[in-house]
Amino acid sequence: MNPNAFRKLSYGVYVISSWDEGRPTGCTANSVMQITSEPATVAVSINHDNYTNGCISRSGRFAVSVLSETSDPSIIGTFGFQSGKTVNKFDSVEYEQKANLPVVKDSCAWIVCEVIDRMETATHTVFLGKVVDADEQGAGEPMTYAYYHKVIRGKSPKNAPTYLPEEEKAQEARWVCSVCGYVYDGETPFEQLPDSFVCPVCRQPKSAFVKK
Amino acid sequence: MNPNAFRKLSYGVYVISSWDEGRPTGCTANSVMQITSEPATVAVSINHDNYTNGCISRSGRFAVSVLSETSDPSIIGTFGFQSGKTVNKFDSVEYEQKANLPVVKDSCAWIVCEVIDRMETATHTVFLGKVVDADEQGAGEPMTYAYYHKVIRGKSPKNAPTYLPEEEKAQEARWVCSVCGYVYDGETPFEQLPDSFVCPVCRQPKSAFVKK
Repeated sequence: MNPNAFRKLSYGVYVISSWDEGRPTGCTANSVMQITSEPATVAVSINHDNYTNGCISRSGRFAVSVLSETSDPSIIGTFGFQSGKTVNKFDSVEYEQKANLPVVKDSCAWIVCEVIDRMETATHTVFLGKVVDADEQGAGEPMTYAYYHKVIRGKSPKNAPTYLPEEEKAQEARWVCSVCGYVYDGETPFEQLPDSFVCPVCRQPKSAFVKK
Repeated sequence: MNPNAFRKLSYGVYVISSWDEGRPTGCTANSVMQITSEPATVAVSINHDNYTNGCISRSGRFAVSVLSETSDPSIIGTFGFQSGKTVNKFDSVEYEQKANLPVVKDSCAWIVCEVIDRMETATHTVFLGKVVDADEQGAGEPMTYAYYHKVIRGKSPKNAPTYLPEEEKAQEARWVCSVCGYVYDGETPFEQLPDSFVCPVCRQPKSAFVKK
């Protein structure tokens, strides 16, 4: 079995949010798909270890915020590289309540669901949600997971003159965030960055970067 | 509820195949996602009305062929706009057996699964498959559903000089395949095409096109 085959499946990038006893919380996820149109239902897959899993189970509701290519990439880090058990993730990310659930404001669409079924696997729960309400908002193309990997996590913007195929880039030493994998690619040499520099994806300090 | 929000979810384009009493069959699908990595499992959503649904249920196995941007678009039509009940779809699409299942040769990856669980909804079955074997093959970027809609179904290739944003194109009268929605966009005026012209996506005859 060649696990690279799984990388050929296409996904978006989403924040799945819910309530934790009145406190908004959530996590990033790729695994979201519409299942039926009448009634509209959506399936999301959430790891058992993810704090959001229990919050969805207890509240019986979740929201999907669809991130766009123009969404602030730090949202991915805020919701993806720390636990909602110890951090109030929505403290640093603006949200609005839609159909009584918190949704990320800097997204291109949101879908609010009520859990109507679930399927358990070894590590993840697949929640089936009946859509309560949904709308588009803002502009921008939906961010795909491929876009996140190629453009945000480690390379120049694809339209930038400094963009090089991955193979050529691999020859150079690169400063990589040890937490989220973001590869620094700015004009200023990494060593000359101020100590206040933080990872634009997960907000870890400069000291979390390692040379690879 | 604004159903346009659902269009912001990102998908790939796949052929889901199985055996029908020893005959290979399948259908196109967008809804495929990996659920767990250890053991590797993949979920696919298939409409109850789709002949492939029953074939998967009876054989207990399915394969996912991941179409790429370079895959022949007629594969989408062959598997998407006719029923495997009456047509031997694999008669016109080359396939290979992988882990004893038929997979589309003109694809960039394949995943063969054994059904280990299922979730029923009003119109679709979500099959959970444990991966038996998987591999990459060929070249090309995986085709996204957005790519299919933007590039194949109705517009010039995105790199072609004739490419125009959808808004501008909408001003012109267009010949559209009434079966699959493909919009003719060739150099030759549609009226001057030979009677032998068929839709490149679903192979319907010229007479199936309507002016919109």
